[in-house]
Amino acid sequence: MSQADANAPALSPLEVIPVGGVGEFGMNMMLVSVGGDAVLIDAGVMFPEPELLGVDLVIPDLTVLDEWRGRIRGLVLTHGHEDHIGAVAHVLPRVDGPVYGSALTLAMVGPKLEEYGIKAGDRLVEVRPRETVTLGQMRVEFLRVTHSIPDCLAVAIHTPAGVIIHTADFKIDQTPLDGEPTDLHRLAELGSQGVLALFADSTNVDRPGFAGSERDVIAGFEEIFSSTAGKIVVTCFSTSLHRMQVLIDLAAQFDRRVAIVGRGAVNSSEIAMRLGRLRMPTHLQIKDSDVRDFPSQDVLCICTGSQGEPMAALPRIAIDDHRHIKIGDGDVVVFSARRIPGNEKAIARVMNHISRRGATAIDDTEKHIHVSGHAGAEESKLVISLVRPKHFIPIHGEYRQLARHARMAKHVSAAIDVILAEDGDVIRFDEEGGRIHRKLASGRVFIDGTRTGEVGDEVLRDRRHLAGDGLVVPVLAINSQSGVFEQAPELITRGFVVDAKTEGLLKDVPGVLLGMLEQLSIEERTDPGLMKERVRAELQRFFRKRAGRRPLVLPVIMEV
Amino acid sequence: MSQADANAPALSPLEVIPVGGVGEFGMNMMLVSVGGDAVLIDAGVMFPEPELLGVDLVIPDLTVLDEWRGRIRGLVLTHGHEDHIGAVAHVLPRVDGPVYGSALTLAMVGPKLEEYGIKAGDRLVEVRPRETVTLGQMRVEFLRVTHSIPDCLAVAIHTPAGVIIHTADFKIDQTPLDGEPTDLHRLAELGSQGVLALFADSTNVDRPGFAGSERDVIAGFEEIFSSTAGKIVVTCFSTSLHRMQVLIDLAAQFDRRVAIVGRGAVNSSEIAMRLGRLRMPTHLQIKDSDVRDFPSQDVLCICTGSQGEPMAALPRIAIDDHRHIKIGDGDVVVFSARRIPGNEKAIARVMNHISRRGATAIDDTEKHIHVSGHAGAEESKLVISLVRPKHFIPIHGEYRQLARHARMAKHVSAAIDVILAEDGDVIRFDEEGGRIHRKLASGRVFIDGTRTGEVGDEVLRDRRHLAGDGLVVPVLAINSQSGVFEQAPELITRGFVVDAKTEGLLKDVPGVLLGMLEQLSIEERTDPGLMKERVRAELQRFFRKRAGRRPLVLPVIMEV
Repeated sequence: MSQADANAPALSPLEVIPVGGVGEFGMNMMLVSVGGDAVLIDAGVMFPEPELLGVDLVIPDLTVLDEWRGRIRGLVLTHGHEDHIGAVAHVLPRVDGPVYGSALTLAMVGPKLEEYGIKAGDRLVEVRPRETVTLGQMRVEFLRVTHSIPDCLAVAIHTPAGVIIHTADFKIDQTPLDGEPTDLHRLAELGSQGVLALFADSTNVDRPGFAGSERDVIAGFEEIFSSTAGKIVVTCFSTSLHRMQVLIDLAAQFDRRVAIVGRGAVNSSEIAMRLGRLRMPTHLQIKDSDVRDFPSQDVLCICTGSQGEPMAALPRIAIDDHRHIKIGDGDVVVFSARRIPGNEKAIARVMNHISRRGATAIDDTEKHIHVSGHAGAEESKLVISLVRPKHFIPIHGEYRQLARHARMAKHVSAAIDVILAEDGDVIRFDEEGGRIHRKLASGRVFIDGTRTGEVGDEVLRDRRHLAGDGLVVPVLAINSQSGVFEQAPELITRGFVVDAKTEGLLKDVPGVLLGMLEQLSIEERTDPGLMKERVRAELQRFFRKRAGRRPLVLPVIMEV
Repeated sequence: MSQADANAPALSPLEVIPVGGVGEFGMNMMLVSVGGDAVLIDAGVMFPEPELLGVDLVIPDLTVLDEWRGRIRGLVLTHGHEDHIGAVAHVLPRVDGPVYGSALTLAMVGPKLEEYGIKAGDRLVEVRPRETVTLGQMRVEFLRVTHSIPDCLAVAIHTPAGVIIHTADFKIDQTPLDGEPTDLHRLAELGSQGVLALFADSTNVDRPGFAGSERDVIAGFEEIFSSTAGKIVVTCFSTSLHRMQVLIDLAAQFDRRVAIVGRGAVNSSEIAMRLGRLRMPTHLQIKDSDVRDFPSQDVLCICTGSQGEPMAALPRIAIDDHRHIKIGDGDVVVFSARRIPGNEKAIARVMNHISRRGATAIDDTEKHIHVSGHAGAEESKLVISLVRPKHFIPIHGEYRQLARHARMAKHVSAAIDVILAEDGDVIRFDEEGGRIHRKLASGRVFIDGTRTGEVGDEVLRDRRHLAGDGLVVPVLAINSQSGVFEQAPELITRGFVVDAKTEGLLKDVPGVLLGMLEQLSIEERTDPGLMKERVRAELQRFFRKRAGRRPLVLPVIMEV
């Protein structure tokens, strides 16, 4: 054996590095490296916690990838959710090969890249279940899994050191709407042949039993369709295409026209319809501006805003601030989505507003109108049992969930070696087994991407260097009953060069805010969460247009 | 009939005004008025939303009561929870008669009044179930109900216009730990005789079925006691005395000593023990400072901090910042409390820290170790069925829950007249029926009550007049990995008279903050929620001690 031969494998054993999504929710990304070749699985974003004022998106710090510069042979995307594909535009410059994904996933990535002015062209390579692509010393095999969006893939990577499986987000939907079940047969086959390591979704390990089929919501919605005299308005995630299909089918059956309302939902439904992943009879669909032309009992609206986001469709409808759609007595509004932790109060506010309008607000505590897309405890155990891995590494979750998933794997088989890793840990597999070998400096990068509704108008900023354009803290005291300003808006600033122009600019701000307030209803003015969002958007637009500056705007709303 | 006779009843028919807690959660308070006499039911606080920066407590605006000045014959307290008794000190000056409540309720009110320097003395009048007191034209009858704290009472008020029933917070615990069940017999009897109006708790109307008995958690805890080799740490609300009793009984059975940790839990357990509402064998109890002297397997800690409050016992233990108690491998930490909406992320953070310590964090998704104290849907329907009221008014809930409770009552009997009221509505009952007659200006008052841990050291401020002592916005940029300040703390102020002294004071602030930061662990420094709380407490203390000022402190923590 020559010295080179002896060194090569010793220098580059199989290493797996969770770049994001392990020890936290969102921004999923994992690097697999062996023998000088690397592949990235997913490139997701995270939605920021409320503490991260002024930040719109969070992505993993990509300097972790520096060691593999020039050797990342491909980016594999498991499915089209933001926490798996939202950072592709940022990651792509560091990838040397193609981007692999299912047809739907790639169709959702395309427009994102265009927004950032990136022409990916033939770098986007469509793959199908059971297909395999070779990337250096790795063979990447794609496996069908079910989830809340169609066309999802898990990944099995065949390496010289053994096979590793990454489940992606999954559940075991035994009666999928599109007839494409999770590929349990191939998981079992790989399990029989021997799997070195399983990396599995921990999102819902704290839910007992099975998640259930997307089909399970049909009965609950049927009850609503058959008993509602007015409009039916359903809010779900923009990418909940299975849910939309259920609703469209019921609308056809119960003779209601369908309006899809809100940009995100319109975009993703158009993409899915183009690819045949969402089927809507042509005569059925109407525009949101046409809703008023139909009797209430003939309309179904599918809306964005399930998390209570103040500027999305349903929250605006709820406070009677939508251009086209009004709700009232006899109408039913259904929340068909999970509540992302941290959004509970905003969602509750929207439900209160709906009830005040006289409409009936229904969520999953009243009817079975939502199923999760993530495996429950029994499904998680089943996959561990089928795959029988030597090593088990829980991913996609905060630390408490990884720890619980780890306990679960030990209950399935005490023989399984569990590795509790976090972002930045380098998990090495070699003749000595699997273990955390070293730790890289992982981290997060904050993106401030104010949109004005125009595609291409998103501007990115790296918030690691803070408040480069200054900091503006508008302080508003609003009467919680009448919604009027109790005192003139105060403006606290930092980091502004005060010249004549800036001074004039700052003097205009109270007037701008008062002007905005006049256009709002009392309900809007007395909703502090909504006001904060409005004030921020208004002042960011003001400073950008009038001074070309992008200060960090941190509104302080005091109810008095 | 003389003119006076003819006028008296016409001038003052039966009116009920929800002062707080109807259309919102917390600060429960209701006024009942007839023939020139009035009685108040409960005087509660609300814990503020995160948007209400710098505010510690919220109470109803008591100017609503002005019309009844000199005619409020008594204050009736249903039970000892803060959202029912927390505002007694503020309300008492407006009450002309005694304060009625059960022994436990009054024992919990007493120290509160002392803190505010109020000597209530013989104004506190103990009542028992089935007892009646006469207040002007009203006879107030007390009925036993079960809830998560012992000694709870519902109220039936016999008036010339008819009987009204206020359920208070309740559930129907069929096997109560203290053998004191909800008085269904008397509710049925009153129902048979005819009830004018029922005011019922809407908190959990969106939960199907029955809440369950406090006894239901025993099996889940037994599993934990019999399988845990290390310390058992349980966090619950300070007033969850039934839960504490279950834990103490199991500790006795499994031979563990009990340490009650955290001021709130210590105080309420001492009161309850004194009154025989909590029974603990003398040899069983140890102090938190003694925990380290016992082997882990011999200890049970009952802690405050179930909502992830940064300065409470468990959250400090979780980040290894408690003077006496440490957790690690083999220890089990149980969250035996509901998650108050808005606290989910703070609780999740504490669970993550616990898992990182190597201990196992268990909540009610894993084992049945919590039951609610509020009636579920079936219990709510049962009470409506038994009472058969002419009018039904849902209370204790946000609007969507009131609306749902109202739909439920209509399902029980279409003959029931439902009145959907909100705070400040004057509900009048007369020969024309029951309806919202007029609306008073209801509102909220914000209380900033910084404590330094000393009884009597709480200072109250009415925040209706904002920022009278100035506004301080410390802006900190903290590295989310290392926890170091990435730039010197910035201090933005408003409303300070800048003289030599103030200037010197403000210059000291960065040093104060840096000094505080040095004493914190990396885990603390990288927890933005906790940092915000710490910075606020530190600067409030600083300004109070050094300048006798109490500015509003609104920390902005930016993770970088």
